[in-house]
Amino acid sequence: MSAVPPLSTTKRTTLHRLSERGRTNRADLYAVLDAGLVCHLGVIVDGYPVVLPTGYGRVGDTLYLHGSSGNHALRTADGNEICVTVTHLDGLVCARSVFNHSMNYRSATIFGTARLVTDDSRRLEALRAVTEQLVPGQWDHARQPTRKELAATAVLELPLAEASVKVRTGPPHDEPEDYDADTWAGVLPAQLIFGAPEPDPDLQIGVSVPEHIKALAGRPRGT
Amino acid sequence: MSAVPPLSTTKRTTLHRLSERGRTNRADLYAVLDAGLVCHLGVIVDGYPVVLPTGYGRVGDTLYLHGSSGNHALRTADGNEICVTVTHLDGLVCARSVFNHSMNYRSATIFGTARLVTDDSRRLEALRAVTEQLVPGQWDHARQPTRKELAATAVLELPLAEASVKVRTGPPHDEPEDYDADTWAGVLPAQLIFGAPEPDPDLQIGVSVPEHIKALAGRPRGT
Repeated sequence: MSAVPPLSTTKRTTLHRLSERGRTNRADLYAVLDAGLVCHLGVIVDGYPVVLPTGYGRVGDTLYLHGSSGNHALRTADGNEICVTVTHLDGLVCARSVFNHSMNYRSATIFGTARLVTDDSRRLEALRAVTEQLVPGQWDHARQPTRKELAATAVLELPLAEASVKVRTGPPHDEPEDYDADTWAGVLPAQLIFGAPEPDPDLQIGVSVPEHIKALAGRPRGT
Repeated sequence: MSAVPPLSTTKRTTLHRLSERGRTNRADLYAVLDAGLVCHLGVIVDGYPVVLPTGYGRVGDTLYLHGSSGNHALRTADGNEICVTVTHLDGLVCARSVFNHSMNYRSATIFGTARLVTDDSRRLEALRAVTEQLVPGQWDHARQPTRKELAATAVLELPLAEASVKVRTGPPHDEPEDYDADTWAGVLPAQLIFGAPEPDPDLQIGVSVPEHIKALAGRPRGT
């Protein structure tokens, strides 16, 4: 029994193929989103689809995206249907046949109407979420936005109401007749890993790498 | 003097902001695409945007995407405008102010009309490109597609005619008055790295990891 409502089962969030990859718990959606760094925003601009990579953050059941207030695609998204996808590539799945090659991944796709957030306190909350999504601890470490900086920032909100989550794990699935082959098969795992922090050359003398950034270095994202 | 034509300068591929991040050489487009594993395909389905992660491959100035022939979004894309974006996250840029936080990245966005490829020899060429994009050497290693497998695979082509490439590198750009602060600033570099190959538990005894897969293990993608 789940304490939170299940994900949506609308036409566009129902998997028609490979439905065993589908996840329907809201916790799975949170897990995919919370582990990510970049989303891809899809929006219709002048009648054609545009796909933009951008940062994001989550507060409860709201996803926030941000960008320059001069960003045409973000402005166009206001009041319109958008699609946001977050994808983690976990491995390349090498099968005995070319046809059965695959990827191990976790992905979330969210549909809904985007709205520009106008209330400044909610805009600050959203920017905190976007900043903390990338580098937890950074919001309190860096200088907060001025009124002018806040005005130059567009914040979009998207309710986490209609979403699908897909996850593939494990070895390849080959055709029965291929398992006798001497062909190597397996998974080449992939991880996004942070390296050692590279200090700004213009850093004040004696400023050391703060603990919250050290904590990320050398580690994969999402663990 | 370039031996290849420059990238397009249409309205939707011209950067209006941060134009210093724009790259206009075709070689830059090839570099971003050839280093990638997953693209995000944007297509309009029933009037709303859909963003799907998928594999891809490049042959000259054509990008190929593939999927199941039962994939609704791929079928919908045929004859319609699509947008394909490939993004590499290279680092999190921590500035002295929240406002000037950024990411180091390389991204390519391609616009154009997609077409389902119907000619079988071109479909095979496309599937080879998609397979080799992920694991170079794998096409000749694994069993080739049967006629039935080929029929179950949809291949989309998109000409690399209208595209934009954006690249950000280097340290943060802070406001002049913030450089005196004792706040740490710099870049937390990020890389996608392949781990040790994980053999399929059902592998025939004595089959070792082939050289072309060993060559990828433990190394970042794109180098």
